[in-house]
Amino acid sequence: MQYTAITLVKRPKIHITPDLFETVTLETPQLKDQQILLKQTHMSLDPAMKGWMTEDRNSYIPPVELGEIMRSSGVAEVVESRNDKFRVGDRVVGMIGWTEYAVSAGKGLQVLPPNVSAEAVLCVLSLPGLTAYQGLMEIGKAKAGETLVVSGAAGSVGSMVGQIAKAEGLRVIGTAGSDEKCRWLEDELGFDKAINYKSDDLAEQLRAATPDGVDLYFENTGGPVQHITYGRMNAHGRIIVCGMIADYNTDKPSPGPNWINMIRRRLTIQGFAMPDHWDNVPAMMEKLSVYLMDGKIKYRAHKLNGLESAIEGINLLFTGGNTGKLMVEL
Amino acid sequence: MQYTAITLVKRPKIHITPDLFETVTLETPQLKDQQILLKQTHMSLDPAMKGWMTEDRNSYIPPVELGEIMRSSGVAEVVESRNDKFRVGDRVVGMIGWTEYAVSAGKGLQVLPPNVSAEAVLCVLSLPGLTAYQGLMEIGKAKAGETLVVSGAAGSVGSMVGQIAKAEGLRVIGTAGSDEKCRWLEDELGFDKAINYKSDDLAEQLRAATPDGVDLYFENTGGPVQHITYGRMNAHGRIIVCGMIADYNTDKPSPGPNWINMIRRRLTIQGFAMPDHWDNVPAMMEKLSVYLMDGKIKYRAHKLNGLESAIEGINLLFTGGNTGKLMVEL
Repeated sequence: MQYTAITLVKRPKIHITPDLFETVTLETPQLKDQQILLKQTHMSLDPAMKGWMTEDRNSYIPPVELGEIMRSSGVAEVVESRNDKFRVGDRVVGMIGWTEYAVSAGKGLQVLPPNVSAEAVLCVLSLPGLTAYQGLMEIGKAKAGETLVVSGAAGSVGSMVGQIAKAEGLRVIGTAGSDEKCRWLEDELGFDKAINYKSDDLAEQLRAATPDGVDLYFENTGGPVQHITYGRMNAHGRIIVCGMIADYNTDKPSPGPNWINMIRRRLTIQGFAMPDHWDNVPAMMEKLSVYLMDGKIKYRAHKLNGLESAIEGINLLFTGGNTGKLMVEL
Repeated sequence: MQYTAITLVKRPKIHITPDLFETVTLETPQLKDQQILLKQTHMSLDPAMKGWMTEDRNSYIPPVELGEIMRSSGVAEVVESRNDKFRVGDRVVGMIGWTEYAVSAGKGLQVLPPNVSAEAVLCVLSLPGLTAYQGLMEIGKAKAGETLVVSGAAGSVGSMVGQIAKAEGLRVIGTAGSDEKCRWLEDELGFDKAINYKSDDLAEQLRAATPDGVDLYFENTGGPVQHITYGRMNAHGRIIVCGMIADYNTDKPSPGPNWINMIRRRLTIQGFAMPDHWDNVPAMMEKLSVYLMDGKIKYRAHKLNGLESAIEGINLLFTGGNTGKLMVEL
């Protein structure tokens, strides 16, 4: 049977452009012992992918090799199985890649319970939810009563961070790039305050929303929110650096804040990436499932259609054009 | 008996100027029960003092009140005692202030063993040594075999940091502001490499001295060393922010580095100040005494003479004009 996949053939310089990819037609092979054949139904698009396309000897994960199928996580159905652990009809989540079909020996795949939707999986029980929980709770050590500012709050990670924080009893202020997103954060997700970072009076709004200063800053974007929030950090404040999406698509990243405040307020800034924390995934999955079952976490998916929509569609993440967790329905 | 003291009467705007201080003549009082009279012999001048002169609700320690004697640590002799814990002739170290004599109830004072010089106390067994140990070992979690870069390496804290790191088996690169200081660091203190940060080829020199990257950066200065070293940090590197002396005397602190590297290399930057860590002082004093007895830590004092020399002399810390730990001999 023939199917379509997309390989990475060039590395991005600044922007992700269509010429980085090649659409190829492949043939499903005869399965060997222990192998399964997967038909992907939902494929996740995440900002981290830009890093996976880029070579950096110090990066947290090896880059996708040129000529290989582009890396991504997704939900798939088992359509053929020569492995006892997977039955035809099972749904799984894992790193499946930009492809309609994939052959796997099952490594790294998790079978999904039947009552959870593919959207809930990609929005909550995979990279976005895990990243949010790891950063906020394990690295940031968030405590009830503290004030959190989260940038990129309407994004896939930011929206999880804010909701987990609310569930844990924090006061939550989010920044996002449109009034519509801000309304969603306040009205649907229960943020204490959401601020459009494009407002002329951003600094005044952030100040007014944090009368007792800021204990935790969860950084997804960089840009002006970073500098203003940094200046409002309380003593012993923690800053968790998860994303710098405002700077991923420039060749001249903007400067950060001066470090004098690090001493005056005894701040900690910590960067992290999930591949360092896989050991913690099962425990976090359990916590996230509980939030989900208790109705404490809502999500919205922004769905594109068809494998090849990923090529242009991934840039929505960098323009802020997506409303909700970006994914491709196959 | 009359004595001289110096009070803080104005707060600094940018520079520390003589008009911030007033020299006053005081009279030693009759001692009350539990009190002792101290005659200060050596008074420490430290960069942190600038912070103590400044008001900031978030600072780690309340500022010196206007009209109060300027705060400082020092070594003194007990010349009169109505307290059983202190005998006339005892030498003590503690926060004594810019004064020739002081009355104390003994709180916060430590009696010194007779065989340790006042210089060794102020260079090693007080703020500089404690700060170095706390930052490098407790916060930075330095491990044998790692590569450390320390800025302001010839300063009172930096010279302790480098020597403790050498004693603990790290590879140590220091930066300082003159060739003479660099020679002292390499020839006397045993640094693996010392680099004059005023060199035209600072970046090349730092690169050549750290072929395996940098695991730990101990920041005392800010400035160009910060940006170059930040770019050379290895995965899971730690940056300890102890001082930013290059920026204390400007009204426009220079920007810091962009945070993308925080994620790519999963870095931690942590600011600290000793008053948060007093509980750890006795344990650290013990460790520092052992280094000292084993001849693993050398020091040099830069001595000024007479109380009033502090007023102009403190600025040597900000111009880099001192060679060794700055102190006033009374």
